[in-house]
This record gives sequence, C-alpha cells and structure tokens, in this order.
Amino acid sequence: MRAAVFQQPGLIEVVDRPDPVIRDSTDAVVRVTATCVCGSDLWYFRGLTPRQHGQTIGHEFVGVVEAVGSDVGTLRVGDFVIAPFMWSDGDCAHCLFGAPTSCTRGGIWGAPGADGAQGEAVRVPFAGATLVTVPGGHPSAELIPSLLALADVMGTGHHAAVSATVVAGGVVAVVGDGAVGLCGIIAAQRLGAERIIALSRNPQRQALAARFGATDIVAERGEDAAAALAELTGGIGVDSVLECVGTGESMATAFDIVRPGGSIGYVGVPHGTEFPVPRMFGGNIGVRGGLAPARRYLPELLTDVLAGTIDPGAVFDSRVALEDIARGYASMDDRSSIKVLVELSLSV
Amino acid sequence: MRAAVFQQPGLIEVVDRPDPVIRDSTDAVVRVTATCVCGSDLWYFRGLTPRQHGQTIGHEFVGVVEAVGSDVGTLRVGDFVIAPFMWSDGDCAHCLFGAPTSCTRGGIWGAPGADGAQGEAVRVPFAGATLVTVPGGHPSAELIPSLLALADVMGTGHHAAVSATVVAGGVVAVVGDGAVGLCGIIAAQRLGAERIIALSRNPQRQALAARFGATDIVAERGEDAAAALAELTGGIGVDSVLECVGTGESMATAFDIVRPGGSIGYVGVPHGTEFPVPRMFGGNIGVRGGLAPARRYLPELLTDVLAGTIDPGAVFDSRVALEDIARGYASMDDRSSIKVLVELSLSV
Repeated sequence: MRAAVFQQPGLIEVVDRPDPVIRDSTDAVVRVTATCVCGSDLWYFRGLTPRQHGQTIGHEFVGVVEAVGSDVGTLRVGDFVIAPFMWSDGDCAHCLFGAPTSCTRGGIWGAPGADGAQGEAVRVPFAGATLVTVPGGHPSAELIPSLLALADVMGTGHHAAVSATVVAGGVVAVVGDGAVGLCGIIAAQRLGAERIIALSRNPQRQALAARFGATDIVAERGEDAAAALAELTGGIGVDSVLECVGTGESMATAFDIVRPGGSIGYVGVPHGTEFPVPRMFGGNIGVRGGLAPARRYLPELLTDVLAGTIDPGAVFDSRVALEDIARGYASMDDRSSIKVLVELSLSV
Repeated sequence: MRAAVFQQPGLIEVVDRPDPVIRDSTDAVVRVTATCVCGSDLWYFRGLTPRQHGQTIGHEFVGVVEAVGSDVGTLRVGDFVIAPFMWSDGDCAHCLFGAPTSCTRGGIWGAPGADGAQGEAVRVPFAGATLVTVPGGHPSAELIPSLLALADVMGTGHHAAVSATVVAGGVVAVVGDGAVGLCGIIAAQRLGAERIIALSRNPQRQALAARFGATDIVAERGEDAAAALAELTGGIGVDSVLECVGTGESMATAFDIVRPGGSIGYVGVPHGTEFPVPRMFGGNIGVRGGLAPARRYLPELLTDVLAGTIDPGAVFDSRVALEDIARGYASMDDRSSIKVLVELSLSV
C-alpha cells in the first residue's frame, strides 16, 4: 500500500509499505476513506518533537472494514467506521473509568510499530472496542468530513469544554482558532453556553467561529486580549476557558480571563506551560485537560452529526490527495489552511 | 474587650481592645461563644508569613448577636450564629457565582482593621449575608464544637472533597491528618465514597480517621506511601485525592497516587507547591482548590450537624480559656493537639 512517512523535519513522503494484515484475533484492517493533517503533526514536521526517519504518521481516519479477526464480534466487513486517534481495549480499569487514552494496552496511530492514519489501510488493535460503526451503510461524501472530525478535533474540542465545566447559560472563552478551538465553540454551543467569546484575528476563522456559535470575537492577543475580555465581561472574567493552543502565552491568557471559581479546560499539548499555583488557589480556579477520550465521546457526538445539529467537518477548508499530502502539511504549517482533508476514496 | 493579638513569632498575647460597635448599617456585633486555633494560624506563629505587631488574629467563631445595623433584616439580637472564616456581601457577581471568598467587598477576620475571631466580640460586615443563624435558640454546649467546625475546617474538608469530585462509590485518599484532613474524611463519607484511605502515622489521628469513615490507614510517607497506595488499589491509584497539607511533598504524593482521569482537590495553602504539567496532561488529572467557600456550604453541613449525622466537633481534642490561648498555639505547634477550642462562654 501507499502511506505517508516522516523522513526529516519539513520532509513528508508517500512510500510503499506492507499491506496491513490481521495479526491478533482482536484486530481489524480498515481501508482508509479519508484522513487528515492535525495541528499536532506540525510538531514533528517542524522538528520540535522527535520522530524516526521513515516513521508512519497521522492519527485520524475513517474507512471501511476490510478484514476482522476471529474475536471481533461487533464489526463486519464493509462497515464504515470512525477510528478515534488512539486505540484502546475497552475493558481495562482505565477504559472503564472513562480514560481510554490511558488504556494499559492502548496506543496511538503512527507510533513505532503501528500503522499511521495517513495511508491506504490501517491494522486496528482491539478493533471491537476501538472503532465506532456509522449506522446506515457508507455515508455520503458530504458527511465524511464531519465524521472524520470526530476522530480527533471535535472530540478534543468537546473535551476542552467538558474539562472547563461548560454549563447551560455559561460564559465561555475559546483561546485558539485552529480546528480544535473552532470545534470547542461547537461543543460550548452544544452544551448550552449563553455567550461564547472566540479569540481570533484571522477573518476566515472569525467567520467560521461565528457560524459555529461564537457570540463575540476578540482579535487582540496577550494582555490586550485580557483587557478586551475584561471589558466584555464587566471586569468579572469568564466562567470557562477552553485553552486550545498549548503554549505558555495562551495558558497565561487563559488565567488572565478566567473568573474566580471558574475553570480552564486545556487540550493543546503543553509546551513551556506552567500553572500559577497562588493564582489558582487564591481564585479557586480549576484546571483539567489532556488527551481527549475521543472514543468515549464518539457515540454522542456521532448522533449529533447524523442528526445534522453539528457540522464540525466545516473546519476542513482544503483537500489534497494522499500523494500530495506534503502540500497539506505545508499549508497547515503556514496557516493558509485551517485543516487539510486527505481524500482517498470518499465515495462508495 | 479582651482579644488575642500577634506580637511577634512565637508570642501571642491577650490584650485590651476597643469594644466593637456598629459602624455600617449592614454590620452586626457578635459576642463570641467559642473560637479556635487553626493550622493556618501557625504560619504567622512560626514567622513563615508576615503579620503586624499587635494585629488581631483568629478567623473561626460562633456566638450570639449583640447588636445589628439598621439594614440587617435577617438577624435578631440573641440569635446564635456561625461565622464563616471570611465575610462576604452575598450579592456581588462572585458571591452569586458561588465564590464568596472572592467577594469584591469581602475580607477575613484578623485582617488589618478588622476584629479577629480570637477575642470576646467581633464586628461583622455584611452580617445578613455572612452569618448563618442556628435554628432553635442557643445550642447545647455539646453541640458547639461541631457548629464551630463549620466556620472553617469542616467546610474546607468538604471543599477538598467537592474539588476532588468525590462521588458515590468512589475511591478516595486523604493526604494530611490535621483537622481539615479529618473533616475531609467526613466529607468523603458523606458524599458516599466507598473506600477512604487516610494517610496518617499518628495513632490518635488514625483512630479519629477510622471513626469518621476511613476504611484504610496508610502510615507511610512520600514514595513509601505511594507504593502502599499502589498495592491497595491494584496499581490503579485513587479516583480522588484530598490534599489537605499544602507542602510540595504532600502535593507530590497526591500526584503519585491519583489515577488517570482522577482529580486532586487541594485546600492547604500552597507553600513550595508546583504542578507537574506533563503528568497532568498525560493522565488527564484535574486539579481544583483554594480557600473554601465555607459560607456556601454552611447550610447543608449545618443540617447534617443538627441531624447528628456528622460530628466534626470531634476534631477538637483540647480546650483552653481565652486568657490561655498561647498554650493552645503551643500545643498546635508541637502537634500534641489536633485542634484547640477556645472557650469563652459555651452555655447560655
């Protein structure tokens, strides 16, 4: 099969790789319909986190089940499935506690020894627990972007909102206008937030934020953003901050704009982030976040996608073929794209 | 009146002070029935935090309303009241959000310009919002310790449990066997925790922990405590940690024993504490805490004290008269007492 691999910082290539096969009785093999490039893929693309030469890459995909192991009772060949960005066994103590990203036998696509999502097919461990079947057969090409968004960015935006304890009637700010932040707006709106303030200075992303439910847009950054938020909230701050970037600056902004007794949900992988303990204690500010338990959230979010009440696929503003995936990385890297969908075969 | 003041580290003296009077129409004056010494009082007693020479001290009291301002509609002279450890106006945005310790017009007893609780009487700002009347007239002398515990330690232990998202059936560990930690055990038991592991190596405190509902006692500290907890939980860790000390070591223990997806509630004023961001993110560990909104919790906890279902007054294992309060500080300082009650006039 053809699959993208990391060669060196800035160099992604599509190469021939062995076709995946069933190795364990709990495996499935999925033919990839669509995959995409994630903001977190840019970390190794930019040389900021290590990656082996020739390593598989990508962790988001939807596709069609091509083969199942003998112990996979819940899937059938031909099922259209969504893969969360990590596999998990579904029955360890951590999975049962709702923390599948800490599954004792779990892992992430593209880890050494595993297939990446950015290829034609993927061997899926613990397929029965990991994959979620889309009911009703192969979905329409129009629906696929929103289904693909459930693999990571929509679940991650939802995790930010849940971790920030967004409640009906609440006042929410979203730091970060990438695909995750934009999905965080969808999540906050879905949870009933009354006011959703999006921090963005990019006109295209501002428009999408408004479409997703943002009631206010703040174009300032850093201390100016904090001042703008203070004015918008009468000096009180917001109940819930969704921190969807992961830098020290974005986290500092989150603490500048959260109100006493409020909550910060953070889902950007922290780089150079510190938590201001005295401020957290003095203001009773709660902090929670991490890798999203995308598998746990998938059924409820899938229901809403199928009902047409959320449309997270709108974050994909660019498409490339697998052979052109390097172009997708480049356009994510220079922020000319919000999120790049990699088409393999969207139609049946 | 007579009131205790801080003279210098290690030196608490009882001196003559002006009798408090109504200054604002929202004030009340309360004749103190009982007060007590808090673990946090030891910080200035030990010279670890600054305090002015001659400053009033103490922040926990119950007593009888002696005078009310013209705008205090909810209190009558003669009411027996509990004062939470901070006053608050009850109607600012922060109070309405449930964060009275961030009240824009709030403050703490013993702050410069305010009466301390460790004296014969206290002027109470925003008395209608701050004080909670005990129904049924003057309580019995036997009940007063548990009512006094609601001023701080029981509300603070409850805040640790709420911040650590203790739920029915949950597995909880309590770090710290001071009065707050012991009240945290009461709170966890009250919230329905199935297993409550108390970290304590003091036989008297272990016994009280067991009486309050601890199902397991771990006498080890530091890494040994983490190993003991790992064995007790099958290597999984606990759902909720109540961190009731505030040192770097106790917080490190909290992170060592919390399970992925679990929560840490911390209420010990942090000294030298840092939060391990990568571990928090990787394990989806939530952290929340701070000064307890004791006023918010008072009604529900008072109901349980009056019903006899909780007995937080049992943390008082020593009593002194106001004139002997220095002895109370000394016995808290050398940990020969868990918590010292200062008697003024317990009976009607």
